[in-house]
Amino acid sequence: MLDISLLGTSGMMPLPNRWLTSMVARYSGKMILVDCGEGTQITLKLQGWGFKAIELICFTHYHADHISGLPGILLAIGNSGRTKSVTLMGPVGLKKTVDGLRVITPDLPFEIQYIELPFNHIGEYSGDDYSVSALPVDHLIPCLAYRIDVPRKGKFDPVKAKLNNIPQKLWRELQNGETVEYENSIYTPDMALGEARKGLRITYCTDTRPTQNIEGFAKKSDLFICEGMYGEDDKKDKAIKNRHMLFSEAAMLANNAHVNELWLTHFSPSLTKPEEFLNNATDIFANTVIGYDRISKTLYFDNTDK
Amino acid sequence: MLDISLLGTSGMMPLPNRWLTSMVARYSGKMILVDCGEGTQITLKLQGWGFKAIELICFTHYHADHISGLPGILLAIGNSGRTKSVTLMGPVGLKKTVDGLRVITPDLPFEIQYIELPFNHIGEYSGDDYSVSALPVDHLIPCLAYRIDVPRKGKFDPVKAKLNNIPQKLWRELQNGETVEYENSIYTPDMALGEARKGLRITYCTDTRPTQNIEGFAKKSDLFICEGMYGEDDKKDKAIKNRHMLFSEAAMLANNAHVNELWLTHFSPSLTKPEEFLNNATDIFANTVIGYDRISKTLYFDNTDK
Repeated sequence: MLDISLLGTSGMMPLPNRWLTSMVARYSGKMILVDCGEGTQITLKLQGWGFKAIELICFTHYHADHISGLPGILLAIGNSGRTKSVTLMGPVGLKKTVDGLRVITPDLPFEIQYIELPFNHIGEYSGDDYSVSALPVDHLIPCLAYRIDVPRKGKFDPVKAKLNNIPQKLWRELQNGETVEYENSIYTPDMALGEARKGLRITYCTDTRPTQNIEGFAKKSDLFICEGMYGEDDKKDKAIKNRHMLFSEAAMLANNAHVNELWLTHFSPSLTKPEEFLNNATDIFANTVIGYDRISKTLYFDNTDK
Repeated sequence: MLDISLLGTSGMMPLPNRWLTSMVARYSGKMILVDCGEGTQITLKLQGWGFKAIELICFTHYHADHISGLPGILLAIGNSGRTKSVTLMGPVGLKKTVDGLRVITPDLPFEIQYIELPFNHIGEYSGDDYSVSALPVDHLIPCLAYRIDVPRKGKFDPVKAKLNNIPQKLWRELQNGETVEYENSIYTPDMALGEARKGLRITYCTDTRPTQNIEGFAKKSDLFICEGMYGEDDKKDKAIKNRHMLFSEAAMLANNAHVNELWLTHFSPSLTKPEEFLNNATDIFANTVIGYDRISKTLYFDNTDK
């Protein structure tokens, strides 16, 4: 199962009840953070998931509201006792930006690794059992959307296992995805498993205008988290000027990408009651939710095919 | 009148109900901030005093918990519409530290001026009608205590005014502290005012061991705000090692400096209920208060001498 929480849902400026944009995902004991505006360490503490498991921090871009909480997060990870390295990933300029901010956190008990993506380069990070992909989007400065995929292996197929002459005593290990060497032969999981089944996918997308690439990138996401900077359709000119989206544009992306659910986030500070404009999204994509700080959900593999 | 509020009261790490140390003072439409840890812009927004009037930000030192909120504060000041310059003041290394953090806030609509104090140098900033003094203290790295003084001019003395042959039509302006030129003569307020009366003084002091200099510096403060990192007296070894104070040590400073009131702040995150150890301070200095986020007070001139 994959846990998701929006730690903050405000764009540009924090409000007392709506902090700066950040998302955290947790899978199999590891945590991935996407963006960390000022206050992220506090809202993550409220969320109660700890800091030690953070192994990857992705940045959409380097506007202050998306990264100003990094020094605090790095210190919190250090204080949690982590000594394993942490990977940071973001558009080109990552190390320079982080080096600047680290003037107040020079000493950390873990190493930082950098994945710096040249503009228009689609990047990927592979965890042990998940992957994170990055897609360039259309903002005022280089900016990335992120997608987390948790693959799911196929079901164990005893007929296939027998056809491949796999000793029955090895079946369980192969079922668990392990490769086994036995009596001078090597047995791989694909010799005993059916086709990979549908895994889990979430896509996170701020700050950008809607683009066709985003539709392809977010295709069939279980959860599509997308900026909804402006609720009112008559703010389209402003959205175009500032390279942001309307609720209705986010909903159109969700509809065209055939996602399961849409969460709106990164609201303009002037949008004090985003729920008043929800219908501008639900008229286009019914399963839309207005995000709020620490809204959380656990995604499970679909077991109806068992 | 001088308004004071502690925006955050936690040392080292923010807790959900206790954010990083920061103090704000407001006098005559101007605001002074001392330290700004992560989240300061949010707690200041909750306090409701706005951002535009901030003209001076003082830093005790550059450990992250005292400055990580600076980018957010600078952006909030900019968004408030301020175009007048803002002065930053702190130990040597100020500009280098701020330049690092400003990698994410390169463009601001106001100029920043720096007062960088060499170690062991006692510094001062003079506002229009108040002054801020800085005293080197005893921490792991160069660190300053700050004192805000609001002077109060003497009462108008008609006998003195008459003795100095001041035309009666000029009395009101001189009473307001203005210098007046009239019929080729210059009249200064001291020609018509009695001795300066007791003004207002607050002293702010983290992170440090107690020192005799602090007693002199804080002398007769109306309000002495002092770190109370550890409540228990048996943590003295730890306090010495980390260059921090016990409640009892802060109270001894308050007592010896003959201050009016002591607020404790900058509590260790491990000190979840500082009020349990309040008596360790009140046994030495009775008028001690355990600080909490956004504890506020308005100090008035003493009018009993009217």
